[in-house]
Amino acid sequence: MKILILGGGQLARMLALSAHPLNVKTVCIDPNKDACGGDVTQLIVSELDQIDAILPQLADVDAVTIETENIPVTTAQAFSKIKPFYPSIEALAITQDRMKEKTFVASLQIPTARFAAATTLDELQHAVEQFDLPVVVKTCRFGYDGKGQAVIRNANEVETVWRQLASDNLIVESFVNFTREVSLISVRDKAGNMVFYPLVENVHQEGILRSSTAPYQDAKLQQLAQDYAAKIMQKLNYVGVMTIEFFQVGEQLLVNEIAPRVHNSGHWTIEGAETSQFANHIRAIAGIPLGSTEPIGFSYMHNCIGDMPAMNGCMQIPGLYYHAYNKAPRDKRKVGHITIVAKDSKTLQDSKAELLKKI
Amino acid sequence: MKILILGGGQLARMLALSAHPLNVKTVCIDPNKDACGGDVTQLIVSELDQIDAILPQLADVDAVTIETENIPVTTAQAFSKIKPFYPSIEALAITQDRMKEKTFVASLQIPTARFAAATTLDELQHAVEQFDLPVVVKTCRFGYDGKGQAVIRNANEVETVWRQLASDNLIVESFVNFTREVSLISVRDKAGNMVFYPLVENVHQEGILRSSTAPYQDAKLQQLAQDYAAKIMQKLNYVGVMTIEFFQVGEQLLVNEIAPRVHNSGHWTIEGAETSQFANHIRAIAGIPLGSTEPIGFSYMHNCIGDMPAMNGCMQIPGLYYHAYNKAPRDKRKVGHITIVAKDSKTLQDSKAELLKKI
Repeated sequence: MKILILGGGQLARMLALSAHPLNVKTVCIDPNKDACGGDVTQLIVSELDQIDAILPQLADVDAVTIETENIPVTTAQAFSKIKPFYPSIEALAITQDRMKEKTFVASLQIPTARFAAATTLDELQHAVEQFDLPVVVKTCRFGYDGKGQAVIRNANEVETVWRQLASDNLIVESFVNFTREVSLISVRDKAGNMVFYPLVENVHQEGILRSSTAPYQDAKLQQLAQDYAAKIMQKLNYVGVMTIEFFQVGEQLLVNEIAPRVHNSGHWTIEGAETSQFANHIRAIAGIPLGSTEPIGFSYMHNCIGDMPAMNGCMQIPGLYYHAYNKAPRDKRKVGHITIVAKDSKTLQDSKAELLKKI
Repeated sequence: MKILILGGGQLARMLALSAHPLNVKTVCIDPNKDACGGDVTQLIVSELDQIDAILPQLADVDAVTIETENIPVTTAQAFSKIKPFYPSIEALAITQDRMKEKTFVASLQIPTARFAAATTLDELQHAVEQFDLPVVVKTCRFGYDGKGQAVIRNANEVETVWRQLASDNLIVESFVNFTREVSLISVRDKAGNMVFYPLVENVHQEGILRSSTAPYQDAKLQQLAQDYAAKIMQKLNYVGVMTIEFFQVGEQLLVNEIAPRVHNSGHWTIEGAETSQFANHIRAIAGIPLGSTEPIGFSYMHNCIGDMPAMNGCMQIPGLYYHAYNKAPRDKRKVGHITIVAKDSKTLQDSKAELLKKI
């Protein structure tokens, strides 16, 4: 079994690290010759749309998957004609466009923030007038880690934001005054079996995920999130890991974003769950029975943004796992993460406090 | 930080898999172009004694270590002139020769089976006469997984065994009627700090390790084993993971073998301990503080000999981890292992029984 991963960043790297022990071979494609997936598996250096050049190198590939939703649908379709493509073309097409995604979610009667499309300055102006301020304006495509987003707090900011985002494919969303942000990692295999990890509480700053704490224990919300995820995955004939980021508002969950892939808020599962999200994505695609999503104790995942913290001091915290991605330091870049797994919530809080003091 | 690993088999593979998240680069050398370490890190295909050919490729290497004791000491010495060599030249020289090893252990007043050298048929005859039968005769070098060993149960078998082993460098050992076989994985860093994993109970068949169960809980034996290991590591100025296989006889521990490296009986630590033996070996060499050796629950490690079991069925056992080495199936070859981690000993026994039914 050999899986082609479109994209060669840290998610491809961690997928490959999980695939090796399962005897599943991997190969990733990335335009960057230093893509960190290449440290641990075969890397083909190429733009992702150079299909004719890539295809001859893929004779022995059994399936194709992605580590990013920013893959041209035409590329995915070209590969899917030759080998099975996971999670599914439809899942990719919908989740790479915020407007399509929100419309799709709403069509399933799953709640989201109020939203409207804006393809002209007039439409943006009109949408802002319809909604209570503040509103969030996002480019429909290629946004991540807070890029391609702006908040309008005052009606006279509309034109500035229009110029700033410089796109005729925008979505306007009402600002959600959430209780907290949570996410759900789900997995569906080819036979339609589904497993769900426990909800995770996430903290973002400047649009970038800073930390995740697992499990977020609320049986009602867990059930609600799983119901939504199941509906979405079934509708998309989804195979693999899917992530939903929710805004929790009281007892409600509003879908904020769907990622058709393994996700930063699931990195804690490497040590904190019986099966990691990466191993389960590989298992779903390779036809290996899905593994248990049970948490092992309580986990805190801390993103390393910009550069990795020094190891001295923090490495001696019990249950701490250091994950460097071998990426060059750069402002606001995710270069690694640290997970702490503890037997109980109190120990986790103590170890987390110790970590934050030391880095 | 980049570490050269002499040998490119499954131990190099698992060392490299552990090194990546620590931002420690690895390169391994193996004469076999399909050596499974090459799946996950850089592989230089070369005989290990072709030092002149290898050296130019190693300009960026910071330290050298081994995944097998069957490395010519001259090779290790040549590398050690350029870069630090771990665990130590002396540790390699002693542990690759059973007679040197036993003599060294005895010199530290640490118990072993009774032993004697035999370099001629006469000496073998003489040793056998001195000992009670049965005795075990082993080649001093290059024996592993039961190869290069024979048992003499009857005085008239001496000549047959002499011809069979075809070596003039033999050790004769009294046969130990042991209560059980246990092993201890120890780690020592460059500053002399030491950590010890809990004792593991091992089962061998035909000289090949079949399974390990951890922890083997006996506070007195644990202390005794640690005392022996500490003495040995300090004497050898050892850096990295060292494994001692013991025969337990009542309340005594006799040293059977020392492996100057990560060891098959420590594979359970990947998921069953807070830090794996592989990560701790890398940490010791790279100057990263050693990680906790605390077990996470109770573990059973099952070696896959000959070929890997089918995944169907066994993959759904909770807490089960499948480790294929991507090695071609072959009689008596170690091609992978499976670890089960459970919260308590009873659950572990149940899951183990289920595994053994299904493979």
